[in-house]
This record gives sequence, structure tokens and C-alpha cells, in this order.
Amino acid sequence: MTVSIYIPGVSAEVNNGPGRQQGAYPLNQWYVAAHSKELTDTPVGRTLLNEAIVLFRKGNGQVAAVEDRCCHRHLPLSAGTVEENGIRCGYHGMLYDDSGRCIDIPGQDKIPRRAKIHAYHIREQNKLVWIWFGQQQDSEPTCEPPAYPIHDDPRYVSDGDVYHYNAPYQLIHDNLLDLSHLGYVHLRTIGGNAKLHMNARMDVESEGTSVRVVRHMPASEPPPTYTAAYPFKGLIDRWQEIVFHPSHLEIWTGAVDQNSEDVNNPERGGFHMRGFHGITPETSTSCHYFWSMATNPSQNIEATKAKVIEQTALTFDEDKVVIEAQYENMKRFVGEAMIDIHVDVGPNRARRIIEQLKTEASAG
Amino acid sequence: MTVSIYIPGVSAEVNNGPGRQQGAYPLNQWYVAAHSKELTDTPVGRTLLNEAIVLFRKGNGQVAAVEDRCCHRHLPLSAGTVEENGIRCGYHGMLYDDSGRCIDIPGQDKIPRRAKIHAYHIREQNKLVWIWFGQQQDSEPTCEPPAYPIHDDPRYVSDGDVYHYNAPYQLIHDNLLDLSHLGYVHLRTIGGNAKLHMNARMDVESEGTSVRVVRHMPASEPPPTYTAAYPFKGLIDRWQEIVFHPSHLEIWTGAVDQNSEDVNNPERGGFHMRGFHGITPETSTSCHYFWSMATNPSQNIEATKAKVIEQTALTFDEDKVVIEAQYENMKRFVGEAMIDIHVDVGPNRARRIIEQLKTEASAG
Amino acid sequence: MTVSIYIPGVSAEVNNGPGRQQGAYPLNQWYVAAHSKELTDTPVGRTLLNEAIVLFRKGNGQVAAVEDRCCHRHLPLSAGTVEENGIRCGYHGMLYDDSGRCIDIPGQDKIPRRAKIHAYHIREQNKLVWIWFGQQQDSEPTCEPPAYPIHDDPRYVSDGDVYHYNAPYQLIHDNLLDLSHLGYVHLRTIGGNAKLHMNARMDVESEGTSVRVVRHMPASEPPPTYTAAYPFKGLIDRWQEIVFHPSHLEIWTGAVDQNSEDVNNPERGGFHMRGFHGITPETSTSCHYFWSMATNPSQNIEATKAKVIEQTALTFDEDKVVIEAQYENMKRFVGEAMIDIHVDVGPNRARRIIEQLKTEASAG
Repeated sequence: MTVSIYIPGVSAEVNNGPGRQQGAYPLNQWYVAAHSKELTDTPVGRTLLNEAIVLFRKGNGQVAAVEDRCCHRHLPLSAGTVEENGIRCGYHGMLYDDSGRCIDIPGQDKIPRRAKIHAYHIREQNKLVWIWFGQQQDSEPTCEPPAYPIHDDPRYVSDGDVYHYNAPYQLIHDNLLDLSHLGYVHLRTIGGNAKLHMNARMDVESEGTSVRVVRHMPASEPPPTYTAAYPFKGLIDRWQEIVFHPSHLEIWTGAVDQNSEDVNNPERGGFHMRGFHGITPETSTSCHYFWSMATNPSQNIEATKAKVIEQTALTFDEDKVVIEAQYENMKRFVGEAMIDIHVDVGPNRARRIIEQLKTEASAG
Repeated sequence: MTVSIYIPGVSAEVNNGPGRQQGAYPLNQWYVAAHSKELTDTPVGRTLLNEAIVLFRKGNGQVAAVEDRCCHRHLPLSAGTVEENGIRCGYHGMLYDDSGRCIDIPGQDKIPRRAKIHAYHIREQNKLVWIWFGQQQDSEPTCEPPAYPIHDDPRYVSDGDVYHYNAPYQLIHDNLLDLSHLGYVHLRTIGGNAKLHMNARMDVESEGTSVRVVRHMPASEPPPTYTAAYPFKGLIDRWQEIVFHPSHLEIWTGAVDQNSEDVNNPERGGFHMRGFHGITPETSTSCHYFWSMATNPSQNIEATKAKVIEQTALTFDEDKVVIEAQYENMKRFVGEAMIDIHVDVGPNRARRIIEQLKTEASAG
Repeated sequence: MTVSIYIPGVSAEVNNGPGRQQGAYPLNQWYVAAHSKELTDTPVGRTLLNEAIVLFRKGNGQVAAVEDRCCHRHLPLSAGTVEENGIRCGYHGMLYDDSGRCIDIPGQDKIPRRAKIHAYHIREQNKLVWIWFGQQQDSEPTCEPPAYPIHDDPRYVSDGDVYHYNAPYQLIHDNLLDLSHLGYVHLRTIGGNAKLHMNARMDVESEGTSVRVVRHMPASEPPPTYTAAYPFKGLIDRWQEIVFHPSHLEIWTGAVDQNSEDVNNPERGGFHMRGFHGITPETSTSCHYFWSMATNPSQNIEATKAKVIEQTALTFDEDKVVIEAQYENMKRFVGEAMIDIHVDVGPNRARRIIEQLKTEASAG
């Protein structure tokens, strides 16, 4: 039996129909749902692509994701407790397994057939937890989640965090694909000389749904984060390689002593900062930003790693302030044109890819 | 003369027409407006059933309730001061008596006939202040407010408080009519063994607009609040009697030593907790929760009372967290069915009574 | 080239078309944009008449005002930095001069013709910064900004501040044109005897778009602020002269020892408080309140000035609480008539002037 419970004055805030919210995001994608380290013995409630989801780790160590809602009276399951075989609601104790099926109703023998919530395809790989958003809520994954072996590579030490942005996900894409802003936004950390950044030669190439941007800044002053981590002798040849994918970006940067070796060689030495940036929409106007930074400090490994992570966090704090201010102002000035400049080649290619994928998602 | 003052960008938030807001609440009811102890020498502004009201106590000790609005420039009268014969506005000093009539305009001899605001029928009884909401704003009460002699019974010590919930009033009805949640929500206070709660036999009967739920939990472990208040010898026979009325619930619970006497006998001894729960809608999506708890501690009366009240407050804090989280999630999942389980018999009867009363209120 | 950037879920919050927002404010007016002392070496972002504006002071000391938006990706320019010749965006370093023209794009030789934002007519005079809002965004000023020589008069010491009100600007007009509220709202500061305030004779005259209200309170007790600043011997003859203009009010008040001289004589001695009150709408439901207070303390000049400013700030704090509470309640009681009393003559004249000017602004 179903009770019709009158809920005054509301309209649905999350998408909970059989299909996906159409047109706002690329679908048929794996998105980052969490860092592995976030899923311990308590559930994590998180809205992803406008769907309220609870993530948890079962007794056998496997990760799981189901709708964040008990089918009885709609308490979020994320307010409940994780058990060996599932997640138990904190109101009347109903237990759900990782397929979303209710498997225990305390005090009641028969479990109604309809006592079931939606479950998600979820995979853990390289210290990241990925979740599948297909065209329909029950669509099977058509590929494997992206690999990111750097997280398991013994040559690097890494750590990361998750940030919440009150801004649409594409503004973060723009920001990351155009590192020329370093000279203005990140003067105190990874910035360096503004003119050098703005004048750096930039190569942009696309392939499928990826965009690759490469910039070189030869003979430049090392910024504070670099000198703290690596014994550069003086000026450096600096390189930045950005690869955009619809669900995440890899931003691998680094430097060698000036004229010491070819910065185009993937086997180059020197100091490396390999950043992972998983951008997962929360709603159409907010997003989660899962980042990690892997480096190869030359000495005092743990202390330097801590320092680099701290500096990276400060850098992203600076970006967050700018991007959220930008979005607030965009809302105030809706309708005003935006004028492109030379740095926008990479971001604009990514925008075209996202538009294409959103169109496909709507048509599918 | 009346000035038309342009108020930009707003629509009426409270109901201030001659009739009542229809269809959202049972009408022709007394609702709790305040605990007696709340009305001292300062006015209390409170929105009840979507009407902004100021409550105050006159010089002769009588309680009064009028619209929370000076008819001059609409400052809330609750920002003013209470005088011997009424309430005075804090802006230009206009004085209103308990019938809502303006009886003084400083600096002006003639008081306009239209200088009048709406007054409410209000009664104080058993340390509670009740307010009448009839079909129309000027409807006379058709009955007396509910008696609650426990508040004046010398066998009990009692105290209480008022909580504000960002949730519709019916979710509190649900919660109070189904005490099976004690085992999951209130483990640290009045909870006890979860399975025992969920498996307890429950008798539900209705009469008119009341629902009565009785549950017995023989041979159970006494929960922390009980052992702190009463010298139980070991296991206890526990009883819970819940009576629902549209404006309030009585939840009388208690326990005797196992097998020591018949828990169905209203004259049974042991430890008693007699809870009063006045649920008054603030708006259709929020409410005031006026509660009191009366007990009969066996010794250290005042200290034990303080302890019981503290524990009760903690218990209701736990409920508030759950109910507000539930409501937020209900808004996110509007449209999803709710699946009933065995504990819902009492709550569902109360929902049918409220639906019937709301229909009558709309038709009236 | 212009990118179309999808902005989810928003509608324009500020007016940024070629014309002005019509009907909400008088146009063809100078409004106060800032105190001179606010514009130092950092930009000030401020919404005025629903337009997001950045104010700054150039290297040559001149003030400037342009749209608070970089034309590239819409970061607020107020998040940028002030330079000798303009203001530079904090994202990619685009520099704008005080005409709104972009004059530098780091890393790019050619500046697109369309890289331009709107600039405002702005004037600094008597320690106030005035901004012109014409019928259209590009309308030229048709008059000079109001003079306020008191700020530069050596007989007075003065200081001031800017307050933000969550209330429409006309509620502040009402408040300032009717000082009878002093006896109820400002008892602790400049208030004094309530009956005396309410019974004081009031003369109201209008001329063009101005209203002048004069009130005398002979033989009254000096209020706390007065006795702290001036060695009155006993009772005082108190005078209040209020002049309303659509963009600001002058409230000049003071007192002489009882019967010592004619309070109608503009050259009267005694203690003077000359208040300037610039009321500039932020939006149709909020405003900026730029105030200053000039006095002529008899001794301990700086200490007394500090005391008077502190007292004045306290007084305006009291007003802010009342006016914001009034506005919140007006929204709750939309549709209820407001009943006029004797004190409303001045405020109502000002309302008629504003209505007339708003009608002209809409028709223009």
C-alpha cells in the first residue's frame, strides 16, 4: 500500500524519474563520485548530476551507491549507518543492499516487492571512485572508467581533496584550460611573471572528445611553489600540458633547469606536478571538484609533499574565489556578450565538445 | 485618509484577508499559542497558521492576541512595549487594547475609526495559552479549549519548551504516533532495544477525531532516562499510550518492575512520563512544537526533574534533526511513492482525520 | 568573435540594457555614489539603481565609475586592481580606462573594437562623490550635482559612514521627514520626551521637488547627545529643520538655552547638528544610506566629535532595526491599508514628489 503524503509548497529538486535530466550534462560518461579515502565506515551523501545519492563501502571493502532515500518515509539514507551487507535507515531501521533492494524491515516478516530504490554502477580504480551516468537510469556502462595510474605510481607522492563550487562546471573547465590566468590570480603561489604567461606560445590540438593544450615558458623565474620543492639553479624552462576530457582534466606541469634538456621529451627530468581534476556537476549551477596533486620532490619527501598540497589547495582557493565571483556577475549581466581574447582557444574547443555531447544526450 | 504606499517586489506572505487560509490546516480548532510562562512583560511575536500575531499579557494578568501590525506604517507591534491596558507601537507610539482598537495616538486628539487591527480569541488554562482559529477570522469559538490537568496535578513535576521545526506539522504527528523509531533515533536517551520496539504489539483505535495507540514492551531493559529517575530492580514492563488530537498529542509512557502489576490499569504505579505535545502550524511548511514533560520521580525530585527535562529536550533535538532532514529529502524526491510498513497504522489514521478536517475547512 | 556561454538557471539581476530600469526611481538625478574618503587605492564595487558599478580613483586623483564587469569573461572589475590610468581585471589582466575602453590585453596586440564597457558621469564635490542617472544610459547631465559646503566649512567638524538597508529607499525618506519618532525609537540617544516630540508644532512647505519641515520644541530637556557636546544651563529651545530632495535630505537641528535667542534666526548660536543623508537606491527593495554629521562642539573638539559621531551611528542603528522590521512586516501584510496620522504631512508630500518623478522617468 502507498500513502499519498501531502507535501506543501514544493516542486521536485532532484531528478528521480526513470530517465536522466536531459540537456544539462554529457551523459554516457563515468564521473568521479569520490576519492577512495572518503569512503570509510560512514555513508557519504552527495548530489551528482542533480541526483541525490548515498555512497558507502560494504564490509567486504567494495564501494556502493544507491538513491539517498529510504522508500518508507524518505529519510536520507546518508543519515543512517553502514552495515556488513548494506546501509540501514536511521528512522525505522530498514536495511538496503547495494542493488537498492530492501532486505530487512525490523518487526515485519514480509518485505514488499516495491521496497526498492535505484542503484548506480560504481567502480573504484586508482584511488578514485567513478559512477556511471547513462542515457537512462538503468543503462549499462558502455566502457571502462578512465585509468589514472599516477595515483599508484611509486615515483610520485600525492594527495588531494574535494572542493564545492557554487558555479557551473564549465567555468572550471575554462579556468583549467587557460593557465594564462596564473600571472594574475596565482601570484602568491604558482604564478610568476604575468607578461611571460600571457605571451607564452600555446599549441592546441583536439582528438575525439579530448583537447590538448601545451605551453612552454623558457627561461622564466621559478615561482614560489617550485623553489620550495626542487633545487633549481636559476632560471627554468617551464612546461604545461593540459589534457581535457569531459569528466576530468589532467594538468601536468613542470620545469627543468634552463637549457638542461628538451622539455618536449616525456622522459624529461626536473620537477613535476601532475594534477588530476575531476569536475562532476552537482546541479546545473554547482559542482564538485575532486583534485589531486602528485609530485616528485628531490628531498624531504613527506614535508615537501605536504607543502605542495598546501600550496595547491591555496591556489585552488584563489580560483574558487574568482570563479564564484565570475558566476555571480554573469548572472547579474545575463545577456551581455563576452569578448574572446587569444587565451580562449582551448576553452572554446572544450565548450564545443560539451555542447555536442549535451546534444547527443538530449537526442539519445 | 489612506496613503497608497508602493511596496516593490513582494506578494503577501501572511494571510490577512477576512477569511482564513483555506485547505492547509484543520479550522474551528483551538491551537496552542504559547506556554503560560512565555508571556511576561514583553510581547511575543509569532506566526500561527500563516497569520502574524503578537501575544502579550496585560496589567491585570490576562493574555491577549492581536495582529502583529501597527495600522499606521505596519511596524510589528511585537517590536513595541506592553502597557497596563494594551500594547504600544515602537515607532510613533500608537496604543492598542486587546480588542485591536487603537486607543491613543500621541499628539493627535481624534482617533480614526479605521485605526483598528484584528484581535484573536485567546484562553489561558493549565499553564497553556490557546488561540481559536475559526472558519472565518471573526468566527466565535464553538467549544472550550482542551483541558490538560496534568500541568496542575500535585503528583507530578513538569516543565517544557517550544521548538521550531522547518517541516510541515504532519511529519511531527507521524513521528509521535509511531514510537517504534525510538530504537533507531533515540538510542542514547529513551531508546532501548530496537528489535523490541519494532516487534512490540500495537493496538490502534480511533474515536471521532482522536486516535489512540497502545504498545507494551514487557520484560525490557530500562533505557538511560528511566534508570536515572526511578529505582527499577531489573527488567521492566514498559507501556506507551499515545492519544492524537488534531491540535496536540498526549504521550503517556512509563514502566513498572517486571510482573509487579498490570500495566493496563490506569492506576498503575512505577515511573511515569506524561508528555504533552502541542503542534501548531506556523506556515504550511513549518511549525511550532510546544512540549512539556511531567514525571513522578521517586526521590531528589527537582534534580531528577531537571535531568528528565534535559533528556527529553535531547530526545526532541534528535527528532528535529531527523524530521527536518526527512522534509528536505521529501522535497528533493517529490513524486516518489512512499511504501508503508507495519508501524504506519496510527500515523495513517491521523492523516485521514486531518485530511477530512481540511476538506471541511475548505468547504465551510 | 563572441562566444555564447550557456548560463544555467538565471535571469538578469541587474539592468544592463541601453536604457534605464524604468519606473522604480526618479531619473535625471545626481545620486551619492560614495563618500570621498571611501575611494583610496582599492576599487569599490557597488550596485546603484540596480546597476553593478565599480568606483575607483585614478593616479591623478580623479574619481571614475564604470560597469563592474570585464567584457571578456565577466569577472567583476571590483575584484581587480587600480592602476595609474585605469582598472585592471584580476583574471587575465585586461585594463580599462575611465571611459570604459579596454586599453591593454596582455599577450595580444590588437584590442577588439567591442572591448568596451559602460562608463558613468561622476563628480566629486564637498567630500561627496555623485553619479548621474539620466533617462538613458548615455544621457548627459543636465545640471550640476548638489553642493554641500558644510563639509568644507571650518566652523564645523564632521564625519560619516555608509549604511546598507534591506528596505526600499522611500521608507528612509518617511523616517527622516518625521522626527516625531525620536521619542519612541531614540530614547537612549537624541530622543527626549516623547509627548513633547509628538505635540511639537510642525510647519511643512514645498517648493519644486523639495519639502521643508520645521519643528520647534521650546523649553525641553536636553537629550543625552546634546548635554555631552554643549554646556547648556538647563532647559533648551530646540529646533529641527528638515529639507527633503529626491536624492538626499539635510536635517539640521540644534538648540539654544531657553529664551536666550530666536531659534528662527539662521545665525542663531548654541549647539548645531547638521546631518547630511544621501539615500541612493541599490535595488527597488534595498538602499545605501550615506550620512554625515557636522557639529560645533564648544570644547574638547575632537573627543566631542567622536562622541557625536558614535551617538549618531547608534541612532541610525536604531532606525535601521525599525525600518527593516517595518519592511519585512509590510511584505507580510501586503494589501492592508495604512492609516495616516498627523506626523505624515511631510513624508506624504515627499512621496507625491517621488511618484511624479518616477512617472516622468517612465514617460521619458
